Amino acid sequence: MEYFSSVYELKCNECGKRFGNRPLSGCPDCFAPLEIAYDLEQVRGKFTRESVAAGPHNIWRYAALLPIPEGFQPDLPVGFTPLLRARNLGKRVGATNLYIKNDAVCFPTLSFKDRVVSVALANAQKFGFETVGCSSTGNLANSVAAQAARLGIKACILIPADLEPAKILNTLVYNARLVRIDGNYDHVNRLCTLVADEYSYGFVNVNLRPYYAEGSKTVGYEIAEQLGWKLPDNIVCPMAGGSLIRKIRKAFNELITLGLVEDKPVRFFGAQATGCSPISQSVKQGWDYIEPQKPNTIARSLAIGNPADGPAASKMIQGTGGWAEDVSDVEIVSGIQELAETEGIFTETAGGVTTAVTARLIQQGRIGKDEVTVAVITGNGLKTTDALAGRFTHLDSRAVRPRLSDFAAYLEELDGATNQKPELEPAGAY
Amino acid sequence: MEYFSSVYELKCNECGKRFGNRPLSGCPDCFAPLEIAYDLEQVRGKFTRESVAAGPHNIWRYAALLPIPEGFQPDLPVGFTPLLRARNLGKRVGATNLYIKNDAVCFPTLSFKDRVVSVALANAQKFGFETVGCSSTGNLANSVAAQAARLGIKACILIPADLEPAKILNTLVYNARLVRIDGNYDHVNRLCTLVADEYSYGFVNVNLRPYYAEGSKTVGYEIAEQLGWKLPDNIVCPMAGGSLIRKIRKAFNELITLGLVEDKPVRFFGAQATGCSPISQSVKQGWDYIEPQKPNTIARSLAIGNPADGPAASKMIQGTGGWAEDVSDVEIVSGIQELAETEGIFTETAGGVTTAVTARLIQQGRIGKDEVTVAVITGNGLKTTDALAGRFTHLDSRAVRPRLSDFAAYLEELDGATNQKPELEPAGAY
Ligand SMILES: Cc1ncc(COP(=O)(O)O)c(C=O)c1O
Ligand SMILES: Cc1ncc(COP(=O)(O)O)c(C=O)c1O
Ligand SMILES: [Zn+2]
Ligand SMILES: [Zn+2]
Repeated sequence: MEYFSSVYELKCNECGKRFGNRPLSGCPDCFAPLEIAYDLEQVRGKFTRESVAAGPHNIWRYAALLPIPEGFQPDLPVGFTPLLRARNLGKRVGATNLYIKNDAVCFPTLSFKDRVVSVALANAQKFGFETVGCSSTGNLANSVAAQAARLGIKACILIPADLEPAKILNTLVYNARLVRIDGNYDHVNRLCTLVADEYSYGFVNVNLRPYYAEGSKTVGYEIAEQLGWKLPDNIVCPMAGGSLIRKIRKAFNELITLGLVEDKPVRFFGAQATGCSPISQSVKQGWDYIEPQKPNTIARSLAIGNPADGPAASKMIQGTGGWAEDVSDVEIVSGIQELAETEGIFTETAGGVTTAVTARLIQQGRIGKDEVTVAVITGNGLKTTDALAGRFTHLDSRAVRPRLSDFAAYLEELDGATNQKPELEPAGAY
Repeated sequence: MEYFSSVYELKCNECGKRFGNRPLSGCPDCFAPLEIAYDLEQVRGKFTRESVAAGPHNIWRYAALLPIPEGFQPDLPVGFTPLLRARNLGKRVGATNLYIKNDAVCFPTLSFKDRVVSVALANAQKFGFETVGCSSTGNLANSVAAQAARLGIKACILIPADLEPAKILNTLVYNARLVRIDGNYDHVNRLCTLVADEYSYGFVNVNLRPYYAEGSKTVGYEIAEQLGWKLPDNIVCPMAGGSLIRKIRKAFNELITLGLVEDKPVRFFGAQATGCSPISQSVKQGWDYIEPQKPNTIARSLAIGNPADGPAASKMIQGTGGWAEDVSDVEIVSGIQELAETEGIFTETAGGVTTAVTARLIQQGRIGKDEVTVAVITGNGLKTTDALAGRFTHLDSRAVRPRLSDFAAYLEELDGATNQKPELEPAGAY
């Protein structure tokens, strides 16, 4: 259950101790999270703008900076999602250089979790796990289930019992074993630590977490490459466990070290739902720790009250001169609609959080109107349709007979009603 | 409202008359559908394997063979979806060279309709339409609404009143004007012809249909390129209006004419739901016409009882030595699950049709077990979750307490129940 690579290995952030490569997520001595440390000098010649451009059109073009075992043959074309100039949204929120990184259309399961899962499963296979799994707020479950099916590995997935129906269905359909836990994500996660040990399961975000987390770096590599090997001024990123935002930073730093981009300050802005905002609270208070919260928000994918990488994320954000904000459930729904109406991108609640927080940061003047800002949209709106259901009830009211005169009358009705927007109420269903 | 391109223009398939470029879909003389005719000799030097490879990683790499106005600047990176070797599914259905073309993850709205819409809207803008629209069985509505939002054009979309909730929501969220018509698709479509005239709307699949339809050729170009500039032995393609399957053929023929692939026979197989199978009926009977049907199937996206390109599709299929099959609603749901379980791809009902038909064709021996076969998956499963809802009721029954002992007990229960598969009943909800 161990293999060695001379290029990367597990390392404790606190005490600096190294552990080779094995399924382990915390330092046995100081209980701090382990991370993957690279010998970047060994990578230097192998990771250039040219070598990347010559690679496949997916995350595996960055393989030299991912912890994947030697001889690994990528099976799925994961990632390389569009980076879109958001002129319309920019106009609405008062920014001239706004971009959307659109992982709402990430392959294969429509969230950025596909990136982390593919890296984690490469290692799970190498370590010889027969069953893989995760504790999940939904998207991770979808991705583990789908990719395990494709690879022909068994999957056992634990979730809070009350996730959105689409996310539950989108796990079951792949024939994964799904266990709904009577509790919130933090209960689920604690249980998973025990289960991983007891059953020798490879849980991507538990005992494989250091490998898993590195997959998120690909969001950062792609942003830099898609900006023409330049770094933006600002990143706005949703936070649950606090992993993604840190790994985008790590990616940028690696690119600077290796000389693929010019060094420049990038400020990181974290986005949470007010109903679960331990990291944004920490940033606002200037803390280097987290006070766990009991989540209560429609942004279920972000509902982690005791985030594993929360303290590190808070410190990182503060260190870059960034900030964190959190928005209400009503604002989340408005954020979803705003992004859809302006850019034609349908995102899930987490993307509503990011959009609403981006708007607020610009309004607050924390993000300058002409700065290059990338808002990271991480998941697809079709997975959280419940959040919007209440907004469009006026539609169910009437079907029009298939005649031109009836159609004309209906259009007139609509024109009369145009300024009566539906009320700003999210569906309070869960 | 007219522009000329020396490379392509509208042409009547029956009488051969040419019409330049304008919003027109049928020949005023013989009422036959118009198509875009290219002067391939003019394209010859401009469309090579090399020029394509140098293009962007989306459908615009094939722009030289698409009817887009001069000076058109692509706005969205549409298409270029994965072509996956389907070893697991192949094993289940007894085929060794099976591939999936996966438009379930097409950008931006997760169906192949994104391809046709982007080409149609380029022309709508050129023709100066202020409002665009369509008659739709769902996916087209999603794509028109999203892309119109991004382009800042008004959209007016007509659908049968009883479409799936996710498809309705995924149209409304972009702030499109949506009119639910009390009738089936064929009623909606007839009304749209009148509306397009009366209101001067640019309806992508009505008065812009010839331009729109060409967008589907990109599925064919991509398949050939992704097979290493080779043609497959067989294509299995879902059919509604009968347009997509014909355009894949047209793409292959163009590639042959231009010398990008070697000439070889490709057989085309059409897939429909038994509850709406006018084209498959026509093929099976050896007709060169269609008998319209009244649709009754969960595959709503394919529920066109009187398909515009039905006769042409039937003749084309028969001419290639192919065949058409249709499957029941129960088989459609099984097809969805089969593809998910084996390849990690979650498709909508139309993809369930394609998967089930592919299996049947192999079983019938109409498709040889070692032939290179590409099954075209055209839409995403998150849009038709209702079709599966009934399959997983056993899940709602129980949430497990977050303790190892409870988890262990639950696993044992599950193991005991493993062979009790849920019944083969689709949700009859709509
Ligand atoms: C859609 C979405 N966005 C963002 C996140 C946050 O990621 P992290 O836990 O790395 O902070 C998640 C995590 O589940 C997610 O599902
Ligand atoms: C998912 C899906 N697949 C296939 C088709 C069939 O396309 P065509 O009408 O070109 O035959 C449609 C048409 O709406 C569709 O939505
Ligand atoms: Zn340590
Ligand atoms: Zn004619």
